[in-house]
Amino acid sequence: MFVLGIDPGLSITGYALVEGTHPPRAHQAGVIRTDTHLSIPERLLELYHGLTEIFAGTEPDAVALETVFTNRNLQTAMSVGRASGVALLSAAEAGVPVFEYVPTAIKAAVTGDGSANKGQVQQMVTRLLRLEQAPKPADASDALAIALCHLRAAPLEASR
Amino acid sequence: MFVLGIDPGLSITGYALVEGTHPPRAHQAGVIRTDTHLSIPERLLELYHGLTEIFAGTEPDAVALETVFTNRNLQTAMSVGRASGVALLSAAEAGVPVFEYVPTAIKAAVTGDGSANKGQVQQMVTRLLRLEQAPKPADASDALAIALCHLRAAPLEASR
Repeated sequence: MFVLGIDPGLSITGYALVEGTHPPRAHQAGVIRTDTHLSIPERLLELYHGLTEIFAGTEPDAVALETVFTNRNLQTAMSVGRASGVALLSAAEAGVPVFEYVPTAIKAAVTGDGSANKGQVQQMVTRLLRLEQAPKPADASDALAIALCHLRAAPLEASR
Repeated sequence: MFVLGIDPGLSITGYALVEGTHPPRAHQAGVIRTDTHLSIPERLLELYHGLTEIFAGTEPDAVALETVFTNRNLQTAMSVGRASGVALLSAAEAGVPVFEYVPTAIKAAVTGDGSANKGQVQQMVTRLLRLEQAPKPADASDALAIALCHLRAAPLEASR
């Protein structure tokens, strides 16, 4: 099974393709940045084109998405909501099922601790995927963690 | 000038095409409903197809969008954010500029009072557009108010 992890954001969206082998294997990890000089609709269009290309190039079996339902800043929540709307739309167009996970679930799945810090998550991602060094930027590493979270949760989904 | 007003939502999105004549003239007003039995990504895809069709059929000069930056319920804010992300994306694909207005600005533009209630807004929309009866459902009426708000604000935009 190939899982595409996505950490959506208007400025930067992390993505990563992980295969559910033993150990799991990272095939791709990167980010889509949007041009800060463009309007928000144009930036969402850039993100949409980027994601559409990634879906076509990776043909994942499932999409795992980080979903944030809590945010002290409502303007940030709206901005993340818009980017995640575009990500969900791209997945639906590609006909790929989407599974959403909150940050604490992702941290717990990867490190065993729902309150782990960014460094701990990055370290475990590096170890679980047998990478030589920690993946950068942080958004790509987060996308790997999201994909790993789904690979750990998926057997439970299937047995329901 | 033809303005497409949009009141975005996952379950129901209001839209209305208003021409900036004197008096302004409503050409279309309606809603896009998404199937509650479908998954959220599939519903966003339905909304996207609906909006793409409306853009192709109405060819507006501008899009006016209601933007809510405050919400007591973060889950609702996320849901509206996703729908508005899809609306903004559709506008960018159609190459139409987007203007966003907060609810108080829309109420003030239409009734002269930023704290007007729904009934007062609906009454003024009916009067300004010389309609025989109040437009229904409420989301279509809201979309007319949003388009009217832009028509009143646009001369100020242009003279800046």
